Amino acid sequence: MAYINIPSEEQLPGIRGLMAFSPETAKPLNALAEILLRDTNNSLSQGERELIATYVSYLNNCTFCQMVHGSAAQCYLEDDGALIEQVKKDMSHAPIAEKLKSLLVIAAAVQKGGKFVTENHIQSAKEHGVTDKEIHDTVLIAATFCMFNRYVDGLGTWAPQEASAYLDRGPRIRDEGYANFDPIAYIKR
Amino acid sequence: MAYINIPSEEQLPGIRGLMAFSPETAKPLNALAEILLRDTNNSLSQGERELIATYVSYLNNCTFCQMVHGSAAQCYLEDDGALIEQVKKDMSHAPIAEKLKSLLVIAAAVQKGGKFVTENHIQSAKEHGVTDKEIHDTVLIAATFCMFNRYVDGLGTWAPQEASAYLDRGPRIRDEGYANFDPIAYIKR
Repeated sequence: MAYINIPSEEQLPGIRGLMAFSPETAKPLNALAEILLRDTNNSLSQGERELIATYVSYLNNCTFCQMVHGSAAQCYLEDDGALIEQVKKDMSHAPIAEKLKSLLVIAAAVQKGGKFVTENHIQSAKEHGVTDKEIHDTVLIAATFCMFNRYVDGLGTWAPQEASAYLDRGPRIRDEGYANFDPIAYIKR
Repeated sequence: MAYINIPSEEQLPGIRGLMAFSPETAKPLNALAEILLRDTNNSLSQGERELIATYVSYLNNCTFCQMVHGSAAQCYLEDDGALIEQVKKDMSHAPIAEKLKSLLVIAAAVQKGGKFVTENHIQSAKEHGVTDKEIHDTVLIAATFCMFNRYVDGLGTWAPQEASAYLDRGPRIRDEGYANFDPIAYIKR
């Protein structure tokens, strides 16, 4: 049970119940997720951006966010789940590009706190050809998930533990995005 | 110098330069700040909400955010700066209502991580008459500033150190709000 009275809580786990409780704040939160994770005018793929979101949510130990965005990353990257698990457990040896690893290192520093990002992290990323926009977006995605994770867990929301409960999330995010998310319509289908 | 190339950096400290670099993400970020900190349909005053934002930014050691939002809190609360300093240094003995203290305790837990908020924190706040919306908004304000602080410091932005550089921020936030913030227009005045 969450710390506040959420309508239809058992049908609206994680942030979905919070968005039903407070639709006025849900709007800018969803707009932010849409531009950061889905905008096609971006040299980072949607799968790479969802992987950054998943990794930060994992580091923050937020079940709901790491499962939902893990499902989205899995869907975009055409992964069966093994890659996501490997990134979580040992990112430095995962079969992903060195450039993406250098961004995940920056994201992990942001998760600890803004001042944990160092000149060395940035220099290393630039040596792998990372652009200013890619650095900007990585830092803001990581910071945004430090917000989402705290919002979801700080209000004690409920989340299913089993991976099977999240399998349909990825395709729905891919097909429908975040901007027009309606938690009540989500229950009905 | 920030880690990315910000236009007119010396005139656009902190998040202002980032909003000039990335106006497309600035829009939902400012919309979120506006609804959380300024919406008048809220039983927490604008001063109380800015104080929560300032306290979290102080705990995250983010100079720019704690100075800007401290200036806003000071302006709304008609404080000469002494109250804000006392809340930062020893919140439990500051001359503020016990109800507000119970919300600042929740905000401090969120700053550490969502799972640091406990049933006891919530119970204590409810004994001081705190509503579900007040708990929701406190958690989301604290989470949002964990994002803003990481965005500002994770990209290594520059911020003036002297309090005098921020004195005009409070009245401007009070008079103009966040929603229509334009960093370039800000330089010109």
